[in-house]
Amino acid sequence: MSTVAELPHVVILGGGFGGLKAARALRRAPVRITLVDRRNHHLFQPLLYQVAAAALSPADIAVPIRSVVRRQRNVRVLLAEAQSVDPTRKQVVFTDGEALDYDFLIVATGATHSYFGHPEWESSAPGLKTIEDALEIRRRVLMAFEAAERESDPERQRAWLTFVIIGAGPTGVELAGAIAEIARQSLVSEFRNIDPRCARVILLEGLPRVLPAYPPKLSEKARRELEDLGVDVRNEARVTSVDRDWVLLGTERIATHTVLWAAGVEASPIARSLGVPLDKAGRVLVAPDLSIPGHPEVLVIGDLAHYDEDGKMVPGVAPAALQEGRHVAKNIVRTLCGQPRAPFHYVDKGSFATVGRNRAVGTIGSRIPLWGFLAWVAWIVVHIFYLIGFRNRLLVMFHWAYLYFTFKRGSRLITGDGAVPLHGASEAQEGAREEGRPDH
Amino acid sequence: MSTVAELPHVVILGGGFGGLKAARALRRAPVRITLVDRRNHHLFQPLLYQVAAAALSPADIAVPIRSVVRRQRNVRVLLAEAQSVDPTRKQVVFTDGEALDYDFLIVATGATHSYFGHPEWESSAPGLKTIEDALEIRRRVLMAFEAAERESDPERQRAWLTFVIIGAGPTGVELAGAIAEIARQSLVSEFRNIDPRCARVILLEGLPRVLPAYPPKLSEKARRELEDLGVDVRNEARVTSVDRDWVLLGTERIATHTVLWAAGVEASPIARSLGVPLDKAGRVLVAPDLSIPGHPEVLVIGDLAHYDEDGKMVPGVAPAALQEGRHVAKNIVRTLCGQPRAPFHYVDKGSFATVGRNRAVGTIGSRIPLWGFLAWVAWIVVHIFYLIGFRNRLLVMFHWAYLYFTFKRGSRLITGDGAVPLHGASEAQEGAREEGRPDH
Repeated sequence: MSTVAELPHVVILGGGFGGLKAARALRRAPVRITLVDRRNHHLFQPLLYQVAAAALSPADIAVPIRSVVRRQRNVRVLLAEAQSVDPTRKQVVFTDGEALDYDFLIVATGATHSYFGHPEWESSAPGLKTIEDALEIRRRVLMAFEAAERESDPERQRAWLTFVIIGAGPTGVELAGAIAEIARQSLVSEFRNIDPRCARVILLEGLPRVLPAYPPKLSEKARRELEDLGVDVRNEARVTSVDRDWVLLGTERIATHTVLWAAGVEASPIARSLGVPLDKAGRVLVAPDLSIPGHPEVLVIGDLAHYDEDGKMVPGVAPAALQEGRHVAKNIVRTLCGQPRAPFHYVDKGSFATVGRNRAVGTIGSRIPLWGFLAWVAWIVVHIFYLIGFRNRLLVMFHWAYLYFTFKRGSRLITGDGAVPLHGASEAQEGAREEGRPDH
Repeated sequence: MSTVAELPHVVILGGGFGGLKAARALRRAPVRITLVDRRNHHLFQPLLYQVAAAALSPADIAVPIRSVVRRQRNVRVLLAEAQSVDPTRKQVVFTDGEALDYDFLIVATGATHSYFGHPEWESSAPGLKTIEDALEIRRRVLMAFEAAERESDPERQRAWLTFVIIGAGPTGVELAGAIAEIARQSLVSEFRNIDPRCARVILLEGLPRVLPAYPPKLSEKARRELEDLGVDVRNEARVTSVDRDWVLLGTERIATHTVLWAAGVEASPIARSLGVPLDKAGRVLVAPDLSIPGHPEVLVIGDLAHYDEDGKMVPGVAPAALQEGRHVAKNIVRTLCGQPRAPFHYVDKGSFATVGRNRAVGTIGSRIPLWGFLAWVAWIVVHIFYLIGFRNRLLVMFHWAYLYFTFKRGSRLITGDGAVPLHGASEAQEGAREEGRPDH
């Protein structure tokens, strides 16, 4: 690449919506781009819960970053894990000690789960951020039904058939709806000792209503849809303790072996190494051009960025990340041309949360509310539209059509460590963290 | 199930081709069936290498056993791992200590890899029997290219780009061909520092020819096809040692970090508990009705059974397992009707091994040889035809059509432990066995 060796070097950390969009928006810019991700694939996060719900396969919602940018000759993809950034040296340092110099840095490493100072809860209540998370949740949910089928003691059986989802944001609502549908539709007539329809799905929300970020009217619609699916929705429910055999709500103790975490997120730790002010969740407080104080060449986008526009924070959603990615790319080009940068402006195209088959709520733009079947169709169209990769779109449409008409779940596989039966809740939960593969 | 409680109890160990076929063949028989498997899914083994080769997703070739038999009311599915059989007590004992009584027992637990007395080789040279195996092989192959891309030292780079497959039976041939195609077609133009086409794929066979079970003419065809794909085929190559950084052939040392095992199989250990004569590979030497000596109620089928017909052993292939499953089901019914049992007769419908796109070899029946494009089409038709589950057939056809016209690989995801970069061959190989998930 000696011919382009003189061009300014743009390093992008993270191949999510923001990072990938920035890279593509710079395809004609006179720059060398290095796109760094610790995973080899771009993940279509909004559909991740469908993998957890055994409806889609990982490959349906993930595409290798290399193949996305294969034809963009000014991009080099690096599978590596960034550990810290040194803004004064203009260097990214990787976990293996290697370093990479940059002229411009776009940090788009996103967020991970937050257990509100209770990291010990994670092993009992996995969150949903990666494909591994989704497969682990899928494994636990399916294994719970298997364990219940083998359990003779009614009380223990009931505990296995109790699913608790903590947090009623979009992910929590989608998980709750999906698990309720698995129990009531997909698994029916497959078991002989239990009736999957007896499963209890409990959705816990600390605030007074589900989908707190949505208009109250839609929260109400979503709650009704969930209860219609048989989900036990509990608002203002504060979890005081989580164990692998129960969840504690103050004095109430819910016996369960399957707890899923959809409550909090916190920014990826690399933000701290920037040495600039962060918000409570560890997000970087960025300037209107999305750069960090004192370093216009360092830009932060996506879930990692905290930007207030007219007193309202730009939400941590895919459309925002895409817009920010495109915006910083434009500003880098402007800077290279000696032009002033433009401030970022978020255009809220709306958002949807699906509750299940035929059921969703959302808004078009920031105003027009939508619910029921119409919202569900809108949700599908939007998600298919934004799904990267022709093949994925077709496949996902195919899966959904299949799912819609058959109520079946295409990907109901129990794989990974702990895919073979273990006994007692504790062991079963241990499975995921055991060493070695069970088949050998 | 009290109404049917009086019916004879048929316990089937293993939900593979043989066990599942036996269960389905007994759907109208006056029996209670318990189908036991330690995995929740039936696996279409012949296509497993396609998952390892990143062409198919696990869900495309696996289907939950429960959903296969959901409408067959006389079957109960038990997700459990059988540890031993007590023929005198007519009992199966599970790993958790629980026991299950039977009137008839069909043992169809199949086979696993054999490292010819070198179990220590397994960590460096994984075999291909389960979905986890396939995903692990996929991860190692893709990670090798990523590591090579990051490696500056030419010699180390070469080691990362060297893939050694041990054993040139159908699985070895299929893996070698698939990896050669990934390197020469799928990954082209995705890397900037390496040319994937420089990858070396070495196929080692101890015997004088590849596909030793096939007619010499077809072995020759297969070898040519493989070499045409750039595979380095070495016959009469005896591996004396396998390490995570090299393979030793007598005095020759091949530097590689990706070794795949396709050499030997041995019967599942449960055979030993039957207390009857076994062959060298641990298979049960069965009578013409596929029962074991002294226990006509215990029937052994599939890869676990060793049955010689006119001095020739029935091969460990899916069609044989299916035929044996159907046969023992019929014999059980005959026994219940007080009729004599019929001896098993294997009908060789032929078999195929695919070498890659447009390339396969095989025979129709035991005689008519077939090769090239024609054999490849025949192979696809046969495999689609036998693939269980309507959805899977459509999906797999879709994947293949896509693959055929684009040369792309649909499922090129690096997931699981070790999906994030680690350094040095040893670490990278360690990845698979590390504890915990890298994303948290």
